[in-house]
This record gives sequence, C-alpha cells and structure tokens, in this order.
Amino acid sequence: MPRYKLVVEYDGTPFNGWQYQTNGLSVQQVIEEAIERFSGEKVRIHCAGRTDAGVHATSQVAHVDLAKDWRADTVRDATNAYLKALPVSVLAAQAVPDGFHARLSAIKRHYVYRIVNRRAPPALEANRVWHVAWPLDAAKMHEAAQSLLGQHDFTTFRASECQANSPIRTLDRLDVERIGEEIRVHASARSFLHHQVRSIVGTLERVGVGRWSVDQVRAALDARDRTRCGPMAPSTGLYLIGVDYRT
Amino acid sequence: MPRYKLVVEYDGTPFNGWQYQTNGLSVQQVIEEAIERFSGEKVRIHCAGRTDAGVHATSQVAHVDLAKDWRADTVRDATNAYLKALPVSVLAAQAVPDGFHARLSAIKRHYVYRIVNRRAPPALEANRVWHVAWPLDAAKMHEAAQSLLGQHDFTTFRASECQANSPIRTLDRLDVERIGEEIRVHASARSFLHHQVRSIVGTLERVGVGRWSVDQVRAALDARDRTRCGPMAPSTGLYLIGVDYRT
Repeated sequence: MPRYKLVVEYDGTPFNGWQYQTNGLSVQQVIEEAIERFSGEKVRIHCAGRTDAGVHATSQVAHVDLAKDWRADTVRDATNAYLKALPVSVLAAQAVPDGFHARLSAIKRHYVYRIVNRRAPPALEANRVWHVAWPLDAAKMHEAAQSLLGQHDFTTFRASECQANSPIRTLDRLDVERIGEEIRVHASARSFLHHQVRSIVGTLERVGVGRWSVDQVRAALDARDRTRCGPMAPSTGLYLIGVDYRT
Repeated sequence: MPRYKLVVEYDGTPFNGWQYQTNGLSVQQVIEEAIERFSGEKVRIHCAGRTDAGVHATSQVAHVDLAKDWRADTVRDATNAYLKALPVSVLAAQAVPDGFHARLSAIKRHYVYRIVNRRAPPALEANRVWHVAWPLDAAKMHEAAQSLLGQHDFTTFRASECQANSPIRTLDRLDVERIGEEIRVHASARSFLHHQVRSIVGTLERVGVGRWSVDQVRAALDARDRTRCGPMAPSTGLYLIGVDYRT
C-alpha cells in the first residue's frame, strides 16, 4: 500500500481548522474528499501540525495511504483538480517508505507570525495578518523573546484545553524582526503546545507597546500560570511554514 | 474649501473596478459613502488611475474637497472607520493646495503585475496573482519587454473601448524579474492606455512560454493592430503601486 507525503498550502480563513469536525469545514476533510473523488478510495490523512481555525500554512505536511500505485505527480494534480473551488493546494506529492509518518517522524516545526504595524487597517492582507495600530518596538520584543528560548515548562503559554502530556517544550528559535510596516515573529521547535505561538506573540506585543517589561515575560514563564499570559494573538497572523524530517 | 490627497490600498476582488457604476460596487462609491457618513457632506472623489474590476492597489491616489477644515488624520481614520467591513483602507490623508488634482497633476504611474509560476495553484494568493502552470523564461520576457520601452503608438496593446485621444504613450520602465516561484513585471509611465499593462503582460507570457519570439513582440507593436496582441492577462495579478507628483 503506497504512502504519499503531501506538502500543502492553505488559506485558513474559511476553515474551522485542520482537523475533521462535525461543525464546519476542515482542511483535512476537503483534502480527503478530493483524494477520494479521484482515487475512488476512502482515505484518512495525517498532518504534522493541526492548525486552528483561521491559521494558514505555506508548507503543512501530511501523509496518505492509497491502495493503487499512482504516480506522485498524479496524486498532486488530481487532488488539486478536485480542490479547485477551495483555497487549498497540494504543492508537492512524493512516494515515501511505510515508516514515514507526517506527525511522528517530524523533528522540527517552523511557524511565522505576521503583524502589520501601522495606523491604517490592512486591505490586501485582511485575514492574513494581525493589525496592531499602535507603534511596536520590535527590538524590545526580540529581547524579551530570547528569555523564552531553550527548554522550559510552558504552562503559562499553553491553552487550558491543551492535550499534550507534558508542558515541557524546547524553543529553538524565537526571533522578532521588523520589515518596514511589518513585524515577523519566527518560531521553531520540535513541537509546540496548543496555542503556544499565539500566546507568546500576544505577550510579546505587550512588551512591544511598552506595557510589559522584558523581565515580566520571563517572570510570567517562571510562574507556570496560564493567567499570567498576555492576551492571545489572533489566528489570522499565524502560518505553519515548514516541517523538518530526518532525511 | 480644503482639498485632501488620499493614498488608498484596496483588494480589487469584490469590486467592479474603481469607477462608480450603476451595476455593482465600485471602490469610488464605497470611499465616497464612507466620507459622506463621517462628514455629512455629499462628495465626489477623483483618482489617479481608474483600475478595472479585480485590479488591486497598494497606493492609489485620490483627492476630495470638503467644506469643513478637518485634521488630515481625522479624514483618514474616520473614513477607515466607515470602511471597516470592506477591503479598502486609506493609508494617508494630507491637506493639499487647490491646484492639486489626483489625475491631472500626476506625472508618473507605477504598476506591478504578479505571476505565480509553478504547477500547483495558489491557495493563499488566489485572486492576488495570475497562476501560470507551465515554466516561464523570465529573462526572455525581459528581453522582449525592452523593445516596448520609449515612445510608441501602442494601438496593439490598447483595449478597443479605450477612450484616450491618442494611442501614443511613453513607457519609462518595463522590467521582468523572477523571485523564486514568482515573476514580477514592473511598468512605469506618465500614463497608460486602457488594458495596456495586461495586454503587454499577456503578450510577454507568450514569449516566456516559448510560443512567441522576442522579435514577434516588436513586430506586433509596429503593426499597430489590436488583433496582433497576445491574450490579455487576467486582472487578478495587477497592482497600482504608486503615483508620482511634482513636489
């Protein structure tokens, strides 16, 4: 039974997140239905990172098992043909060994969070960014971010409904940079807790606007207390931009 | 009667173009209505370049006369407050002398045309680019573009319904560059004919895919014959990105 790795881009706006649900359309469901329509098989796909409602991906990774041995390019093109009306696109499909698992084999996830920092609301990037109208100090945000690097108990930056066994995670990268009117937060880790990136970005924004000191962010982390987290950043600015695997 | 210069960003997707019409929503109409709602005045705005349905702007310029002497920042913020539900945003407002006219005072217009050149359709950039699935040779497109620079009779690259008095225009810039999967065509001129940029881009695409030679583009220009134009590129990839004025 051939297994295929899929690299998927999507606009999260119209979806109720990646994961299949009974209420609302999910990215998983529309991809499964597209594959079922061309292959005639009932399938289940597995992804590297289950994004929330409104969260985007430029490079989500998923895998699917098909009974028939299709050319990988055919899997990509035929799935896209049935996704036509929806903002989901399979960028690449590749035959992989049975041992490959999109979630379990992943060794690192990369996210970027985009903030448009100007007075006027975004027109072309509505639903693609977080609009923060008051001026943000990106250098201060970056400084505060550095205190979160490495292995910590991230209970403060974890959704109350998070189902991970442990709140311990290792942040490998958390960089904040300004590019003109845009601020980008780059976050990389082996894995993330539920709402971890948005909780961190919302907290860093408090630093950027001058309401929190850099030290308060580290103190909030050390408190291991969800109530010490800043207000969570909206889903619209978050992108899953890559997943690494052992080659 | 104070006059204000407005710099406007918009997503052209939901609009039937800039200009007020009886069928469908126009960018002009929604801005005029927003200004009318905050100012209580009946207004008419004038823009630098009337974009077609589906064409975007990062920096359209318009002007409006108001009876009351508002702070310029108030004009920007109050207009945006009434545009909230729509993908139109006033980036800047500035009081200008009576002699300023958004269209007549403009000395140069800048457009960019964005092509996503890859097999898979764009998900995040749907309605923001032209998707060309077959490989394009950007260097060849650029070479062909250079033969259109300068002053010419652009009848070949002009919509049949174009209302300009003369088909003579002077192209100051027409550069084609590749940035990864994206190809950008940069076009600058004092003014453009109706559909001129999209007609040129559609013709350059024929060169990029290897169906037309570089020489054929120049021959099409010299023919001054609309039927010699390549298929017109779609509106989704076109952006008005700036307008210059004598300072």
